[in-house]
Amino acid sequence: MTARLVGVGVGPGDPDLVTVKAVKVLRGADLVLVPTLDVGAAGRAERTVRAHIDHERLQRVPFALNERTDRARREAAWDAAGALVAAAFTAGATTVAFATIGDPNVYSSFSYLAATVRGLVPGVEVSTVPGITAMQQLAAATGVPLVEGEETLTLYPLTAGLQGYREALRRSDCVVAYKGGRHLPGVVEVLRERGRLDAAVVGTDLGLPGQSVVKASDVDADLPYLSTVLVPPASRTRGGRL
Amino acid sequence: MTARLVGVGVGPGDPDLVTVKAVKVLRGADLVLVPTLDVGAAGRAERTVRAHIDHERLQRVPFALNERTDRARREAAWDAAGALVAAAFTAGATTVAFATIGDPNVYSSFSYLAATVRGLVPGVEVSTVPGITAMQQLAAATGVPLVEGEETLTLYPLTAGLQGYREALRRSDCVVAYKGGRHLPGVVEVLRERGRLDAAVVGTDLGLPGQSVVKASDVDADLPYLSTVLVPPASRTRGGRL
Repeated sequence: MTARLVGVGVGPGDPDLVTVKAVKVLRGADLVLVPTLDVGAAGRAERTVRAHIDHERLQRVPFALNERTDRARREAAWDAAGALVAAAFTAGATTVAFATIGDPNVYSSFSYLAATVRGLVPGVEVSTVPGITAMQQLAAATGVPLVEGEETLTLYPLTAGLQGYREALRRSDCVVAYKGGRHLPGVVEVLRERGRLDAAVVGTDLGLPGQSVVKASDVDADLPYLSTVLVPPASRTRGGRL
Repeated sequence: MTARLVGVGVGPGDPDLVTVKAVKVLRGADLVLVPTLDVGAAGRAERTVRAHIDHERLQRVPFALNERTDRARREAAWDAAGALVAAAFTAGATTVAFATIGDPNVYSSFSYLAATVRGLVPGVEVSTVPGITAMQQLAAATGVPLVEGEETLTLYPLTAGLQGYREALRRSDCVVAYKGGRHLPGVVEVLRERGRLDAAVVGTDLGLPGQSVVKASDVDADLPYLSTVLVPPASRTRGGRL
């Protein structure tokens, strides 16, 4: 039997925002790994997974999300997770699923895990199941379409710095910034300078019961790491529900 | 009762790539509209919808997808669809769902329909359910992550021209181009000129049984309008399955 590792996108946090395919893969897997920042508590991915599976072949793997964490510690976490996957295959598992919030191909740690497992399990077959991303949930929550017609969209991680963000706002119609958290005050400054502050919205805990969507102009402090900032095309600043 | 219009993203074409939420909304709607280019044949959205509903409250609405079609004809199609939604509410419907491939907030015609309906039905409540986009399906199909770490992504509609596409390749790490079809020969030229041709892939009929994913360097003719071109970050040209 071929060993199969599947990165399963479970969406932003609302258990209903997983795909039918994700549910099937999670149910059929011999082992489902869920990343957690704290092994003593259920993470966002785990809560979504538990809403859909009735088996107990689920295991938490500690990982370091925040990019403030030093690289060595993040790599150690992935090595440990990779070893766990390899051990599962040795023990007879055919399919191991790794549940990741959002989409496994969009700022997900899944590719690091996949690389580790490829090094440990020769011939392992790696695949992914797409998931709804935070920006899609934010667009739905605000009622503001991301892109229409000939508009362009840039997805920008704020960990790459504010200068690049400023550039993105100049070059692209719609700009969505991820990993906003501690950069928010600087972001608000840039948006004001470029005349885009009034239309910008910030989403936090998207898809979760505590979901918050506020105007960027109302932000006056740091927000959690996983905050998303949506700046719609300038031509459409009328729309939305906020 | 409040009249509710819901734009439901049904993903790229694989019936399993719809969300649990989309299935619930489609099943519970009083009327499900599916766009079609030819009222005599089931379109891509309809095939996905039919895999999940067992009621017959489904109606095809003709629409003009291709942006070669003149604007007047496209607007006439949306006016007709809007009138159909308004008539359904008048006849007693509470919830009308409009199924759209991909995501209703990403290059979807749903926002035009929503604007038309808002004009005809005062107080109508409009919402959307996110769906998996073609670029996410293409990333999954090729095994190439779209963005990792501090990488940026630009989503570019080729109907906006090749000069902007060239710019996007210069400014952004990962560039996904939509609506590629007849622009493909020019796209290949630009990719060659910028040294990005070898890593680029082109997906057509993504999520459908006839799904095709080929290297951009193997493209030698026009492709269907809904083709997607993925150029991964230059730092990761090693990866993927092609």
